[in-house]
Amino acid sequence: MKKLINNVESAIDESLEGFAAAHGDIVTVALGPTFVRRKTLKPGKVALISGGGSGHEPLHSGFVGYGMLDAACPGQVFTSPTPDQMLAAAQSVDGGAGVLFIVKNYSGDKMNFQMASEMLDLENAVAMVDDDVAVMNSTYTTGRRGVAGTVLVEKVVGAAAEAGYDLKACRALAERVNKGCASMGVALTSCTVPAAGRPTFDIGEDEIEVGVGIHGEPGRRREALKSADEIVADLTAAILQDLQPRSGAEALLFVNGFGATPLLEQYLVFNSAAKRLRQAGLAVTRSLVGNYTTALEMAGVSVTVCLLDDEIRRFWDAPVHTAALRWGC
Amino acid sequence: MKKLINNVESAIDESLEGFAAAHGDIVTVALGPTFVRRKTLKPGKVALISGGGSGHEPLHSGFVGYGMLDAACPGQVFTSPTPDQMLAAAQSVDGGAGVLFIVKNYSGDKMNFQMASEMLDLENAVAMVDDDVAVMNSTYTTGRRGVAGTVLVEKVVGAAAEAGYDLKACRALAERVNKGCASMGVALTSCTVPAAGRPTFDIGEDEIEVGVGIHGEPGRRREALKSADEIVADLTAAILQDLQPRSGAEALLFVNGFGATPLLEQYLVFNSAAKRLRQAGLAVTRSLVGNYTTALEMAGVSVTVCLLDDEIRRFWDAPVHTAALRWGC
Repeated sequence: MKKLINNVESAIDESLEGFAAAHGDIVTVALGPTFVRRKTLKPGKVALISGGGSGHEPLHSGFVGYGMLDAACPGQVFTSPTPDQMLAAAQSVDGGAGVLFIVKNYSGDKMNFQMASEMLDLENAVAMVDDDVAVMNSTYTTGRRGVAGTVLVEKVVGAAAEAGYDLKACRALAERVNKGCASMGVALTSCTVPAAGRPTFDIGEDEIEVGVGIHGEPGRRREALKSADEIVADLTAAILQDLQPRSGAEALLFVNGFGATPLLEQYLVFNSAAKRLRQAGLAVTRSLVGNYTTALEMAGVSVTVCLLDDEIRRFWDAPVHTAALRWGC
Repeated sequence: MKKLINNVESAIDESLEGFAAAHGDIVTVALGPTFVRRKTLKPGKVALISGGGSGHEPLHSGFVGYGMLDAACPGQVFTSPTPDQMLAAAQSVDGGAGVLFIVKNYSGDKMNFQMASEMLDLENAVAMVDDDVAVMNSTYTTGRRGVAGTVLVEKVVGAAAEAGYDLKACRALAERVNKGCASMGVALTSCTVPAAGRPTFDIGEDEIEVGVGIHGEPGRRREALKSADEIVADLTAAILQDLQPRSGAEALLFVNGFGATPLLEQYLVFNSAAKRLRQAGLAVTRSLVGNYTTALEMAGVSVTVCLLDDEIRRFWDAPVHTAALRWGC
C-alpha cells in the first residue's frame, strides 16, 4: 500500500488537523468526539449536520461553512461515525431553531444518526439521501445508496437554512432535492482502505464496474472497457429511466470524479453526458465538475442529474463559503 | 491503458468542448487554433496569457476568468502549444494595454512563446516561472522547471492586471512572485500519456521519486517509501534551503495533488509541512490545498512555499472568478 501517511491509526486526525490549519477562517475541528464545525454560527438558523465515513473528501468536511453545513462528523475510512460525535456536534452548533441531520443511506450511518436524534429528543431531524439508481440494496445498504447527490442536497438546503427556512421546510426541501436527483457511477480501478492495506476489489486491466458504489461496492455488472460515449450512454439512460423528466425540464449536470480520474476525462464525460441530456429534451443550465464525492484513489466518475425549479436553482446559486465550494462571497 | 475517452486523437478537443459547456458563463473555447478565452474582456487591461501541455488540468484553462488569465493555450498532452495558438489567443484578447505571456520553464514552451512574441512584435512580453527547486536541467528543461508555483503567479499578477498595473509592472511582479516561490514534489506512481498508452516511468511497489517533475521527469533520487513526515521534511528542507527566508517571514503554503492522491493525504501533508515551516520561523498565513497542477493520474504531491508581503497578499486575496479558483465574486 502506497500512501502519504505516517501511520494508519492517526491518519484521519492528522488530516483533520491539517484541514483546520488550512481553513482556520472557515472551520474549527474538535478531536474526541471528532467533528468539524463552522467557525461562526448564525443564531436562530436551523443547524445542518452531515457525516459519514472518511475517504470521500471533500465530502463532508469540505462543505462546512456559510451557506452549507454547520458541522460534519467524519468516521474512520468507509466507516460510519458514532452517535457521540453527532451528539457533540449537535450540542455545539444548535442555535435554537433545531437540527437537521443530512444522511447518506447506509445502514450504519442511518442507525447512528437516528440514535443520536433519539438521544437528543429530536423529531423529524433526519433527511435521507439515496440518489444512486444503480442497485437496490447493496453491501452496506438497504434500499438505494446515497452518493454524490448529497453535495447538491447540502448546498441547496444550506442556502435555504441561511435564508431562514424552518426545520420542517428544510427537511421537505431536502426530500424534494433528493427525489429530483439521480446518480450512477463507473469504476476503472479499485481503492485501498488504509486499515485493510489491499485493494477493496479485484478488477481486470480491461474491465470496468458499471454502477459501482462509493466504497467500491458492486454495481450492476462487470464489463469490458468501452468508449466514454458508450459508458455515459449507459449511465444517463439509467438516470433518465429513474427520473422520467418532462421534456424541456431544467437540470443541473454534475460529473463527479472518484479520485484518480483526471479533470481532462471528467470534462470529456461532461461533454458526452450534456449532449445525451439535450437529446432527451433536458435543458442543462447549471453544472458541477470535479472530485466532490470521492472513493479514496479509485479511478472512475459518477454522473448526477438534478432537476431544477426556481426555488432549487435560486438556492444553488446563493453564496457559499466552504473549503470545497465557494462563490458569491 | 484505462481512460474515459473515445479516442486518443479527439480527447483534448472533446474535453475542451465539455469545459466550455460547463463554464459558459466564464469562458469561450476556440478550436483550431485552440485556445480558451475569458468571455468578457476588460478594455485597457494588460492581457495575461498562459499555456502549456495538457494533462495538468485545471492548469491553465481552469484559471481563465476575472482576476486571473485572459486566455490559455492548451497543447497536446505534455506537449507545448504552438505559436499559432498563442498568436490567435493574443489577437483575441489584446485590449490595447499589451500582452504578457506567463510561461513555465520548459524548452518547447519557452521557444514557442518567444516566437509568438516576436511574430507579434511584442517586447518584454514573456514572464518565466521556474519554481521547482528539485533539479537544474531536466528532460524537457534548461534551468529549473516551472511547476505549481505558476498558479500563484497567475493569481497574483491576474489581480494586479485587474487593478490597472501596466505591462512593465505586471512583468516585474510576476518575476518577484516567482523568485519568492519554491516547490518540490514526490511521486508514488507514474502516469500514462494517452498517445503513449503505457506508464511514463517504472516505479516499484515500495519506491518513491523525490523531486519528480510534472511530466514524470526524474527528480533527485529514487527512494524506498517512507513516512509522510519524513518525505515532507525532505521537501521543505530543499525549499527553505532555496528561499532562505528571514525569521518571521510570512508565507503561503500550497500543497498540490498530482492527480491520484486523495485530499485526506494532501491535508495530512499540509499539516506536516505547516509544522515544519513554523519550526523554521515562518508565519503561514495563507493556504491552498488540492489538485491544481496535475500530472494526469500520477499519485503524489508537491509542496510550494510562496513568500508574502503586503502587495502579494493583497492580490492573492483579491476577488477571482475562474472554473478552478473562485472567491469574492
